Amino acid sequence: MDKLSSLLQALNGSTPTSVPIWFMRQAGRSLPEYRDIKGSTPILDLLKNPEIVKTITLQPVSRHNVDAAILYSDIVLPLLVAGIDLRIEAGTGPKITEPFNTPNDTEKLNGDVVNSIPSKLDFVGEAVKLIVSEANVPLIGFAGGPFTLACYLIDGESSKTWSKTKSFMRTFPEAFSLLLNNLALLCAQFIRVQLLSGASVFQVFDSWVGVLDRCDFERFVVPSINAIRSSLSDFNQPMIYFGVNTSHLLDLMTSLEVDCIGIDWRISLTSAAESMNYNHSIQGNLDPSLLLSPFDVIKPIILQTLEEGMRIGGTNTKIGYIFNLGHGVLPETNPATITKTVELVHEFGRY
Amino acid sequence: MDKLSSLLQALNGSTPTSVPIWFMRQAGRSLPEYRDIKGSTPILDLLKNPEIVKTITLQPVSRHNVDAAILYSDIVLPLLVAGIDLRIEAGTGPKITEPFNTPNDTEKLNGDVVNSIPSKLDFVGEAVKLIVSEANVPLIGFAGGPFTLACYLIDGESSKTWSKTKSFMRTFPEAFSLLLNNLALLCAQFIRVQLLSGASVFQVFDSWVGVLDRCDFERFVVPSINAIRSSLSDFNQPMIYFGVNTSHLLDLMTSLEVDCIGIDWRISLTSAAESMNYNHSIQGNLDPSLLLSPFDVIKPIILQTLEEGMRIGGTNTKIGYIFNLGHGVLPETNPATITKTVELVHEFGRY
Repeated sequence: MDKLSSLLQALNGSTPTSVPIWFMRQAGRSLPEYRDIKGSTPILDLLKNPEIVKTITLQPVSRHNVDAAILYSDIVLPLLVAGIDLRIEAGTGPKITEPFNTPNDTEKLNGDVVNSIPSKLDFVGEAVKLIVSEANVPLIGFAGGPFTLACYLIDGESSKTWSKTKSFMRTFPEAFSLLLNNLALLCAQFIRVQLLSGASVFQVFDSWVGVLDRCDFERFVVPSINAIRSSLSDFNQPMIYFGVNTSHLLDLMTSLEVDCIGIDWRISLTSAAESMNYNHSIQGNLDPSLLLSPFDVIKPIILQTLEEGMRIGGTNTKIGYIFNLGHGVLPETNPATITKTVELVHEFGRY
Repeated sequence: MDKLSSLLQALNGSTPTSVPIWFMRQAGRSLPEYRDIKGSTPILDLLKNPEIVKTITLQPVSRHNVDAAILYSDIVLPLLVAGIDLRIEAGTGPKITEPFNTPNDTEKLNGDVVNSIPSKLDFVGEAVKLIVSEANVPLIGFAGGPFTLACYLIDGESSKTWSKTKSFMRTFPEAFSLLLNNLALLCAQFIRVQLLSGASVFQVFDSWVGVLDRCDFERFVVPSINAIRSSLSDFNQPMIYFGVNTSHLLDLMTSLEVDCIGIDWRISLTSAAESMNYNHSIQGNLDPSLLLSPFDVIKPIILQTLEEGMRIGGTNTKIGYIFNLGHGVLPETNPATITKTVELVHEFGRY
């Protein structure tokens, strides 16, 4: 299975025959065949149906010929399963019915609650098994990062500033650390189910950590990510950590016990690798809005990114490179552009 | 006038007797006395009334004892005056009725349109004169940055990604450059009226440039900012340039012909000054969400920022330091916290 090895080789820091490529948010909103299945069904209902999850997860693999599948799910699913009342609205993201305001609220996610989760996630394990039995590429499992989940729990809905969360963090730092630790265990439970059922890799989406300064990232986020890894120390599958807007945090990420860091387009792949002392493999970093322009306009930028990535993932370094975007595929992206991008990377991405 | 000289001395790179402090968005939404005046009047109506603008501009000066006033206005006002149909909705920001989609649309802001602006801005000049005649601190004039105005014109409303704008930029780069150049002239016209009427300093708010990569910032934004400065070469007043989320762009800002750079909290004042080779004075950089926490929690962070700023603005360097936030005051901020912050900086900010 060549394709399995290209992703896993890059994550192990060895050089595959060609650069692996996949896209964050490749499954879902940008694909007409997804919109046909979804119709007006609420997302959370789709996520609970293993057959549907399998179909949606594999749609971009057959359409785009990407080198990995990523489970179709949502970062707030474990919160829902843990008893947090929430809904996901199309276009605006998750809304928490009763956002956390005080340290007492964090009791809703205490250790007992978190430990009761795995038995309620059978439908996730079932979906993973169905996917793995059909897929000809590795499946990436995932979870949201503890800080990012705390953002939704405390701010209650998507925010540009996440100011309620940051205010909670500073006013109740011990309670916030405890919340992040419980969320780390919750994430680990969610990922554990996926790994046990056959996922080959997992990614932690900590999208909003870029709103933090260096000091708070080091104090709150680094321990929460390393807690996920140590909760999963009985697994060998590689771990990818991803955040948006992390240029100012990258050197601090050398202390994350992960295999690969996903970065956005604000910093070059080379500068990112240098900031992290070539300690972790690198994934990224095309601006998703690039895919909205005509292909002849963006082709040189894709090739330039690829060339830079290949220097990082080449035989002279100990780290690998995975082609991806710097954030999720935008809903308005023309799927044909994604397919052409994969073709281009497959054509020119040979080591 | 000691207070005048503290801000202007910091901008000239000399060391004032104490650190000047003001807050972006100090006038307006966070103050109850502002909300009393505003009531349900649309913002754009307030902006056209010089007496009201004067009152709102001076409210934070008397309440907080800050060292500068900043004109109460809006970055989209020059667009409105230039004939672009738009409205400002409380909480969500500007909405453009007919967003720009094609290069043809940019004709709405051609050179003739821009040149006709000054005569339509008498009410702005009148407000500035009223403020300057009453204020005991210098008045900061301002405009939006060309890229940031283009974001509203093309995306049509506030966005996390500004993907339509970036797509336009890449698909029609010449038309986009021309648009930015015309917007630079429009900004310069807006600022010119303020300088002629007595503003002592001006700031360009280019809030959203942080979504760009380094290459696009250099290609599109740097020329647009230098075009503003050269359009105003007949004025001596210092120029401050501000953007959010610019950690990855700071070294490129050494080529901006401005006196001071405002930065956000993601990078330390010291790292920012180093990135820019101590070429520009520095303004910033407290996280606005800090002001939502109890004062005893944030006091050490304020003092630490102040201490760092004083090393930058001290006698051993050729640049100055101005205390400010890293973005605007959040509407939900308790005004008493702002007042206490000013007191603290005045008490401990003596060189």
